Amino acid sequence: MRSFSPEFEQLKMPPIVAVSEMVRQREEEFLARTGEKLVHFERGDVDFETPVYISRALTEAVEQGNTRYPRPGGIAEFKQAVMRKMCDYNGVEGLSADNIVCTNGSQEALGLCLQLFRGGHGAGFTPCWSCVLGTLTPFYGIDFTQIPLAGDFSIDFRQIEDVLARVDFFYFNNPGNPTGRVFNGEEVSKLSELCRRHEVCLISDEAYEYIVYDGSRHVSPLALGGEHVIGIHSFSKTYAMTGWRLGYTVSRNDKVNRLLTLGNFAQTAGVTTFLQHAAAAALNDTETGAESIRGMVMEYRKRRDLLYEGLSAINGIRLAKPGGAFYLFPDCSELIPDQCTGDERETYIFRRLLDHGVAVVPGKSFGTGCEEYVRLAYSCTPLPAIETALKRIRTALG
Amino acid sequence: MRSFSPEFEQLKMPPIVAVSEMVRQREEEFLARTGEKLVHFERGDVDFETPVYISRALTEAVEQGNTRYPRPGGIAEFKQAVMRKMCDYNGVEGLSADNIVCTNGSQEALGLCLQLFRGGHGAGFTPCWSCVLGTLTPFYGIDFTQIPLAGDFSIDFRQIEDVLARVDFFYFNNPGNPTGRVFNGEEVSKLSELCRRHEVCLISDEAYEYIVYDGSRHVSPLALGGEHVIGIHSFSKTYAMTGWRLGYTVSRNDKVNRLLTLGNFAQTAGVTTFLQHAAAAALNDTETGAESIRGMVMEYRKRRDLLYEGLSAINGIRLAKPGGAFYLFPDCSELIPDQCTGDERETYIFRRLLDHGVAVVPGKSFGTGCEEYVRLAYSCTPLPAIETALKRIRTALG
Repeated sequence: MRSFSPEFEQLKMPPIVAVSEMVRQREEEFLARTGEKLVHFERGDVDFETPVYISRALTEAVEQGNTRYPRPGGIAEFKQAVMRKMCDYNGVEGLSADNIVCTNGSQEALGLCLQLFRGGHGAGFTPCWSCVLGTLTPFYGIDFTQIPLAGDFSIDFRQIEDVLARVDFFYFNNPGNPTGRVFNGEEVSKLSELCRRHEVCLISDEAYEYIVYDGSRHVSPLALGGEHVIGIHSFSKTYAMTGWRLGYTVSRNDKVNRLLTLGNFAQTAGVTTFLQHAAAAALNDTETGAESIRGMVMEYRKRRDLLYEGLSAINGIRLAKPGGAFYLFPDCSELIPDQCTGDERETYIFRRLLDHGVAVVPGKSFGTGCEEYVRLAYSCTPLPAIETALKRIRTALG
Repeated sequence: MRSFSPEFEQLKMPPIVAVSEMVRQREEEFLARTGEKLVHFERGDVDFETPVYISRALTEAVEQGNTRYPRPGGIAEFKQAVMRKMCDYNGVEGLSADNIVCTNGSQEALGLCLQLFRGGHGAGFTPCWSCVLGTLTPFYGIDFTQIPLAGDFSIDFRQIEDVLARVDFFYFNNPGNPTGRVFNGEEVSKLSELCRRHEVCLISDEAYEYIVYDGSRHVSPLALGGEHVIGIHSFSKTYAMTGWRLGYTVSRNDKVNRLLTLGNFAQTAGVTTFLQHAAAAALNDTETGAESIRGMVMEYRKRRDLLYEGLSAINGIRLAKPGGAFYLFPDCSELIPDQCTGDERETYIFRRLLDHGVAVVPGKSFGTGCEEYVRLAYSCTPLPAIETALKRIRTALG
């Protein structure tokens, strides 16, 4: 066979998937050596079950024969449910069905948004979700500028304007992976206004919109108005539906909505019809939904508190307290021996923790300057396992 | 907002979707005018229900908690089931799990295959599935050469070699949409051998592999060997699962398999986990599956016979008898008045039939030289409706 497209040929498995595979191999070895289980913080999956009312709606939708081709962009019931949710939760009013496009997970939504600017220029804050940096932007031929957040993961607005003058889009993940940072209304508003002024598309990835703690509130830039915003939303984290692959975009830009609809149709001919019915049911039973989300967020908060307190108490770890999502991203640079350099330095904490039965993700793949951080996801790690892990981490790094 | 990628910006809704929307609008008008229902031949959807054993497997898979992220490329159970099916039905032996990639419908499979050659050159026979010509190849920046089939839709091999010398892939849809043509083993073998010799990737779209009539047999080029073949398969037509969006690729080329797995992961992070379980069940219960397919194909054959006999008897219609799929593609050129030219000529039969309550798709979008053909899909049209339609067609064109 002849040559393949260079962008496709250079595609690599995201580092987190590669790390997960490596951890899987080490898991048995650790069990055999110590008789104990490895504690997982490397996965961004969730350990909750999809609420029963949603699974039941799925069964009903199939039984009712909703097994034919979906309409491009999404079925009417799905769009209706999203419109109501966007109004009630996100404060985005006056939407019509045309503003919503149903996608195969928020990953497809994000990929389609990036493809709008294929071969162009984008920017976003680092630490940044590794899939954007390592997989999606190179696959879509995008030149991506990293804008580092401050030490406490706040925005240094002085750095932004120069970059905005020369990019097509800004990728904004709030609450953020891997930092857990929740940006407040003032920050969101200022960022959105700058994008608008520079005619930059604000791609707002709100996958963790419901996972916020301590009374902080999620702010959608779309609620502040503007045709330059594309909101990306997901069912994965909110309803423990990671394996359902369901998401959607929301925009007030007619052309964007038309192109995203066409793009989704071209890529996959739409999203499984009965999944859309089940997703509509997930959103429409607001009471059951809210109760299930409340329980889940309460448990995540307990995990965050335990893990945050434990890690902060370790000498040499610097850690901002996250207000949302289910990640912690500690700076471990002070704990890495000076004689450790290069690749070895970048994986030192990862390897040392793995030897002690704790799996994390090395910081490097989340951006330049993140090499001496590690990411811990606590979405799959119950409280007792976190207790065990903290003991091990203290032994490994203390 | 600044400019979008030109390939994305030029993306258009596939003509068949546009025709379906137009027909939807005319449907009520026809009912009001005549008191009778319009007969639909424009849709490639199916009017069978997904067999109950598959829906039941879906419910079970969800109840068993298979709601977490899928593994890149597909879950083990799915791949195992496909390997057995490829051996039993397609005669493709010696496959391993790495040879299979699960995709969001065969449309995603095809799109990923085309993206392997983004910006390159491809070729295929016309009449050709309109989505390939009008949507997918332009979206992926591919220069596509049309090779016309002979009048009876057989292959004129003299035309092929010159083209193969300068393309990266050959798109081959067998049984074919819109012709219903089933190419025999000799033709498939000769085509595959030519592609191999010219180092051209043979993208073999086998969506209609089970829908063959009159004792003809579906031949997969992969069964004839070679690392240059990518087989594309779908659940949509075989199991009346159009709205499930499930398909897969099969290849003996390690690099292709690795890239397609990565590509699927980049685009959608994989296929809904429990759908893969249900799909495995669809394949694994071979007895129930075969019975359901047999019943469906028998019904399709009756529809084909009725429609073929009826259309062939109309003076001026030239029509090759299709051996598979669920389409007829009659040449109506003799029925179009000479004074009818340009756009009007290309839509004459379509408009005339629609006025008489019969919806078809104009031939133009299936390739150069197809402008005076129309496509009839009988997958949604029961026998009594076909009887009604034939009367109307005789009135309209007789």
